[in-house]
Amino acid sequence: MLVLHGPNLNRLGTREPEVYGNATLAEIDRELGRVGAELGAAIDSRQTNHEGELVDWIQGARGAFDAILINPGAYTHTSIALRDAVVAAGVPSVEVHLSNPASREAFRHASHLEGVVRGRVAGFGAESYVLALRGIVAVLKERR
Amino acid sequence: MLVLHGPNLNRLGTREPEVYGNATLAEIDRELGRVGAELGAAIDSRQTNHEGELVDWIQGARGAFDAILINPGAYTHTSIALRDAVVAAGVPSVEVHLSNPASREAFRHASHLEGVVRGRVAGFGAESYVLALRGIVAVLKERR
Amino acid sequence: MLVLHGPNLNRLGTREPEVYGNATLAEIDRELGRVGAELGAAIDSRQTNHEGELVDWIQGARGAFDAILINPGAYTHTSIALRDAVVAAGVPSVEVHLSNPASREAFRHASHLEGVVRGRVAGFGAESYVLALRGIVAVLKERR
Amino acid sequence: MLVLHGPNLNRLGTREPEVYGNATLAEIDRELGRVGAELGAAIDSRQTNHEGELVDWIQGARGAFDAILINPGAYTHTSIALRDAVVAAGVPSVEVHLSNPASREAFRHASHLEGVVRGRVAGFGAESYVLALRGIVAVLKERR
Amino acid sequence: MLVLHGPNLNRLGTREPEVYGNATLAEIDRELGRVGAELGAAIDSRQTNHEGELVDWIQGARGAFDAILINPGAYTHTSIALRDAVVAAGVPSVEVHLSNPASREAFRHASHLEGVVRGRVAGFGAESYVLALRGIVAVLKERR
Amino acid sequence: MLVLHGPNLNRLGTREPEVYGNATLAEIDRELGRVGAELGAAIDSRQTNHEGELVDWIQGARGAFDAILINPGAYTHTSIALRDAVVAAGVPSVEVHLSNPASREAFRHASHLEGVVRGRVAGFGAESYVLALRGIVAVLKERR
Amino acid sequence: MLVLHGPNLNRLGTREPEVYGNATLAEIDRELGRVGAELGAAIDSRQTNHEGELVDWIQGARGAFDAILINPGAYTHTSIALRDAVVAAGVPSVEVHLSNPASREAFRHASHLEGVVRGRVAGFGAESYVLALRGIVAVLKERR
Amino acid sequence: MLVLHGPNLNRLGTREPEVYGNATLAEIDRELGRVGAELGAAIDSRQTNHEGELVDWIQGARGAFDAILINPGAYTHTSIALRDAVVAAGVPSVEVHLSNPASREAFRHASHLEGVVRGRVAGFGAESYVLALRGIVAVLKERR
Amino acid sequence: MLVLHGPNLNRLGTREPEVYGNATLAEIDRELGRVGAELGAAIDSRQTNHEGELVDWIQGARGAFDAILINPGAYTHTSIALRDAVVAAGVPSVEVHLSNPASREAFRHASHLEGVVRGRVAGFGAESYVLALRGIVAVLKERR
Amino acid sequence: MLVLHGPNLNRLGTREPEVYGNATLAEIDRELGRVGAELGAAIDSRQTNHEGELVDWIQGARGAFDAILINPGAYTHTSIALRDAVVAAGVPSVEVHLSNPASREAFRHASHLEGVVRGRVAGFGAESYVLALRGIVAVLKERR
Amino acid sequence: MLVLHGPNLNRLGTREPEVYGNATLAEIDRELGRVGAELGAAIDSRQTNHEGELVDWIQGARGAFDAILINPGAYTHTSIALRDAVVAAGVPSVEVHLSNPASREAFRHASHLEGVVRGRVAGFGAESYVLALRGIVAVLKERR
Amino acid sequence: MLVLHGPNLNRLGTREPEVYGNATLAEIDRELGRVGAELGAAIDSRQTNHEGELVDWIQGARGAFDAILINPGAYTHTSIALRDAVVAAGVPSVEVHLSNPASREAFRHASHLEGVVRGRVAGFGAESYVLALRGIVAVLKERR
Repeated sequence: MLVLHGPNLNRLGTREPEVYGNATLAEIDRELGRVGAELGAAIDSRQTNHEGELVDWIQGARGAFDAILINPGAYTHTSIALRDAVVAAGVPSVEVHLSNPASREAFRHASHLEGVVRGRVAGFGAESYVLALRGIVAVLKERR
Repeated sequence: MLVLHGPNLNRLGTREPEVYGNATLAEIDRELGRVGAELGAAIDSRQTNHEGELVDWIQGARGAFDAILINPGAYTHTSIALRDAVVAAGVPSVEVHLSNPASREAFRHASHLEGVVRGRVAGFGAESYVLALRGIVAVLKERR
Repeated sequence: MLVLHGPNLNRLGTREPEVYGNATLAEIDRELGRVGAELGAAIDSRQTNHEGELVDWIQGARGAFDAILINPGAYTHTSIALRDAVVAAGVPSVEVHLSNPASREAFRHASHLEGVVRGRVAGFGAESYVLALRGIVAVLKERR
Repeated sequence: MLVLHGPNLNRLGTREPEVYGNATLAEIDRELGRVGAELGAAIDSRQTNHEGELVDWIQGARGAFDAILINPGAYTHTSIALRDAVVAAGVPSVEVHLSNPASREAFRHASHLEGVVRGRVAGFGAESYVLALRGIVAVLKERR
Repeated sequence: MLVLHGPNLNRLGTREPEVYGNATLAEIDRELGRVGAELGAAIDSRQTNHEGELVDWIQGARGAFDAILINPGAYTHTSIALRDAVVAAGVPSVEVHLSNPASREAFRHASHLEGVVRGRVAGFGAESYVLALRGIVAVLKERR
Repeated sequence: MLVLHGPNLNRLGTREPEVYGNATLAEIDRELGRVGAELGAAIDSRQTNHEGELVDWIQGARGAFDAILINPGAYTHTSIALRDAVVAAGVPSVEVHLSNPASREAFRHASHLEGVVRGRVAGFGAESYVLALRGIVAVLKERR
Repeated sequence: MLVLHGPNLNRLGTREPEVYGNATLAEIDRELGRVGAELGAAIDSRQTNHEGELVDWIQGARGAFDAILINPGAYTHTSIALRDAVVAAGVPSVEVHLSNPASREAFRHASHLEGVVRGRVAGFGAESYVLALRGIVAVLKERR
Repeated sequence: MLVLHGPNLNRLGTREPEVYGNATLAEIDRELGRVGAELGAAIDSRQTNHEGELVDWIQGARGAFDAILINPGAYTHTSIALRDAVVAAGVPSVEVHLSNPASREAFRHASHLEGVVRGRVAGFGAESYVLALRGIVAVLKERR
Repeated sequence: MLVLHGPNLNRLGTREPEVYGNATLAEIDRELGRVGAELGAAIDSRQTNHEGELVDWIQGARGAFDAILINPGAYTHTSIALRDAVVAAGVPSVEVHLSNPASREAFRHASHLEGVVRGRVAGFGAESYVLALRGIVAVLKERR
Repeated sequence: MLVLHGPNLNRLGTREPEVYGNATLAEIDRELGRVGAELGAAIDSRQTNHEGELVDWIQGARGAFDAILINPGAYTHTSIALRDAVVAAGVPSVEVHLSNPASREAFRHASHLEGVVRGRVAGFGAESYVLALRGIVAVLKERR
Repeated sequence: MLVLHGPNLNRLGTREPEVYGNATLAEIDRELGRVGAELGAAIDSRQTNHEGELVDWIQGARGAFDAILINPGAYTHTSIALRDAVVAAGVPSVEVHLSNPASREAFRHASHLEGVVRGRVAGFGAESYVLALRGIVAVLKERR
Repeated sequence: MLVLHGPNLNRLGTREPEVYGNATLAEIDRELGRVGAELGAAIDSRQTNHEGELVDWIQGARGAFDAILINPGAYTHTSIALRDAVVAAGVPSVEVHLSNPASREAFRHASHLEGVVRGRVAGFGAESYVLALRGIVAVLKERR
């Protein structure tokens, strides 16, 4: 399972905690590792502020991972390159958000990825990642 | 835990299974009951095609339930009355969708509820309800 | 043949006759019965001001009727629930209007149903219903 | 005088009092009764969360009431059926709001009724109803 | 009765039959002639790909025909000149479509004629013309 | 109580009486004086066609008046300067209209003031001013 | 001086006289001839319902006429080909309208020609043509 | 004949001569006086930069002038008060522009006056005023 | 190979050479003939200012030509009839432009044909036609 | 150096100090005088609530001042007359704002002046004026 | 000749072959090299998923290359930085697309580059690059 | 003081000097260093064409710098990631532009940063940076 964190998510814990919660990215990754182990899913977590690097990583998922969990951060709203990469990846993706973008500024309401992902989870803080992991594992099981 | 199913969801299993999956509403409710029991959350499930009845039920949640899971169906996109009821309910709500409305027709992209719910889960079929249940139970535990 | 009349159509004959004509709903239903008899199509006519009740009735058409004639009145422009019900009904529908909504206020120009019905007839007053009945009977014959 | 309260107004007093004030619906109806008595206008007050029921009641006003005071709540912004019913009612209507919708969210700025009512009063809390009552009584007197 | 077929309708039968059906224009005109004879209405059918020629023919209808049935094809969406001609014609017109433009591309949803015709029939294939003919004959009878 | 009449209101009585009624501005001011006296509120009425002069007068209200009744006429729709002045005035304002702008031309539907006034009254002709006066006096009493 | 009359203008005198006046096209052309003679400008007047023919004629103006007076009728709002022809013509053009399109339907408010003509005259009925003729003759004199 | 020049027109001759020409306002007024004398129409010309003053002057035209020629300058696009004054004036108005606003910036394309004036002339430089004067004199003669 | 030149292209060489280049239409057609001969593709070139004639010619291509090169000129932006004809033609089409419409006025940015042609070439002056010819010949070869 | 303060700026110090700061207009003008003296620029400061008066003053700048600093207040967003005056002034202008309009209401985001001024400074409170003064003095020096 | 391939183009051959064809990027580059050699144009081909790297490379073209062929992939629709780089490059650019973006999703219809490139070629698969190369070589020859 | 220059600003001096001036980036940085020294503010200047690198640098400002001066170049209009980074940075930022984006193309009029920066300076060429530096130093002094 490839877990991708987009721009500014390396600042979690100190960045606007009233919006994003107090958990740091390291804590989220540890919790994902724990639940993944329980569900039999190995987790590989990465963060970058570069759109192009996210595209590189998504391209590399083919043949290497069963699925992608991605919190694209601000690139959710501006990157069609991410969308194209997700379509070309050949493995299902889930879009994850800590907060609920729909209850924030208007420019966060549209998502370039929302039309091409398998599922979406938003608004449960760090728990959003865990639910997305459980959801995609359930979908993968069903397919076999 | 109050679980509300909006218009046309009583037709699940026969209605466009390629979009909504094969599970019937009764099967979804049974699965929610089973997971709810495991998490210590009693489930009260209801369906209606009437917008006004959904408003009545949401109003009745105050003092009677800890939270509301709601799949508003087509009223997602047209009902401000539901939105006002959710705000007035005084308990947290989660918006659930079987399919991913964002990858469907343009008139399904906007939601009147998305700005006032605690979280949103979409696109995992019947599993969407289970994830929403787990998510809101986690949020409620944290509050205590 | 299920014939559904939406909100305010029970007021025909007294409501803005310069727009809707002088025929009452009972007279329209009698004429439909007469033409239906001639074409070998039994008519079951109903009226309601409730969106949810229209959804209930459309859901009940499956297995009970060959087709639906529906004049959704003002719900034409605001109800996605009706659209979803029509899609799920599994029998062809025809959208009927007494007047020509296109020559009236701008908010009557869009229809949520127009994209999912088999045909549309508008602007011939009470005769609109008769033409719609003839049209759908012709379509049904062709299918056999 | 028919007084109609739309969806969620039965929750007045507990629902967002900083927006809607502390008066309950029962208190507003008592005050309307008191002022109505003084002005020689009998008051018949009703509340419902159902759009269809509001349409039923407005239709029933013809021949039974001189005028309608209506606070359509959230249906202000989504119901063309109410608009059609008001036009067909044959008695003048006044649109009433406790708060000033124009200083709230964008989706509350448009009203389907505003173009077909005789007058509008908004923003004076419970007093809005009393002013609307005085206004329509003055208009009715002038007509005689 | 003047029957006008707009651009590309001379290609019926070979042009996208899954959208427009298998009937050729000659077959439609024969069927119209047959039903017209039965209803006492002589039919004069013409086709052109030229917007200006349609305008010429509509102008010529005054004093020569009782009504116009027109399928304006693609000019439905782009020609205000047709609209002006229809208004100036002095005889009632009916807009006819084989398919249901409302369930096709967005640029086919608007019609410059829809606001000035007496009635509209769409979506019944070749039968649309027959229904339009019956409808306008009924309207003309009523007027006498 | 400062009462401000905007552009063209000095022409009342002769200007489009079918829209604005037959009362002259002098008659409206006399009636306001009479009702004000009864409610214990002194009335200071002024009219101008100049946007800047309305701003000057609103600025002068601070410390001199308890509240402002303003019919901004056409400046309702074009003046942000009036809006800023009303916000800065430090006393509550009520927006008054003789007719119901919402049932007139589209360019009269938006109001720059509607978001910053305490209340709004429209559509009761000259009586609109009297209701606004009663409303604001009630609000002021409640505050004490 | 080339004078071009677009679609439906051959119906002047009988077509909606409350909008376009009672003068026929022949009368307008006679009056233009009379005033042209007085100003030393020979008039060549033509009418067509065909967009392509107007383009042909405008192309032919180069080297043959000093200027073009054109009332493009409905093509004002839909033809970019006319605009391109006017730009390529190499002689100044004036856009003429009998009525004032700006006070009519919204779809008549935009003009594809208005940005490339020398001047525009609208709303004086048949006199609009005479004023346009005087205006362009004045402009041509100034140039010499 | 009242001739009104709006904001910045007192700068004619020095202000962007490539757009507005070299004639000063005094020269235009002299030419209007000369042609007016010839047509039997006395001219009263005024200029102001103040929107309110233009409203005052238009109001004063009733009973004092036969018609109004107005070049509202930049107020063309922003003043609804001018529009209301023109409607209330009770005498016909003509809108005049030196340049052709339609071939300039987008914010100059809309006019609040265009829907309520008798006619419009634009793009002939100073000659625009003369044509407008001739046009309105012709219209006034016809009425007698 | 059918080569179609739309409105005003017969004016090439004299019409705005800074936009369209100095080559005349005859020169372009000669060069196409030369390159076509080299590629084994016979060229049939035609020009018209009439939208309907373009539709006639495109309809005639079926069975007579392998492909269509079309420079629709101004009809690019206004003609849905051309689009329908291209779809119905049954042979692939290429859209050609001398200049790059995307760097010109906004009303030239949209194309009704762009969604239904096989390829597009723009901005290389007369060379655009040659490239389009080479491109479609390459595509046709691949199909065999 | 002409310094112009638009509507409501005379209320600085008491008007919404959390937005505009505590400095009064007199204090700002004194500071501008002090810095101007240091830079060798005499300052002439004026305030008005009247759009027309601002236009008068800007017109008067030609030949009398080197440059204009203008805080147009609410007229920023509604006055094209100010824009035209600035263009016609013949001396460079700088647009100044105390707060940052871009982080306020949507109707403050557009500026009619922003396209015609030499520079813009916003968001530094009273210091904004000083920076604007330094900026324009630097620009003027460079020109010499 | 600098040839730039944007994001996800390194996946050609495996990525959605029904849209992009079966050729790999290496094969396209080989073919470009072959045709370039024939035309006397050396080819330097590069691919990256990083917007910033494309900007770096375009900046480096000045003085090093005669022209740029660029397929900006998804950055076509989102990058103004690419546009600025292309404008600043000082050598002509051609925009190339394998598929025809105009017949795909709406968010692919706009291009930030289309207004600043010399030419555009789209829809011929790998052949698009070859045509673009031929086109720009022809343009460069003409300039000498 | 961290000074960030976005994409294409490394080309200053050669890139469109009529828009951006003749100063190179090195000269601007030297002048900032000189004025910073005078004001007691050390300057650290950096340039990149990569959005992600700007985000990295802004994140690194916390604890290392008092404030950020940023000219985001084209990313002004497309990057929400920059906006989020600026909000999370915890030190005040100022947005700087050499030219005045408001007087350029429409796609440069919106800024994702303008709502979250402390101040904005635009249009004074290289001097814009110096004014921004003076402004933010004044703001920082006031805070102590």
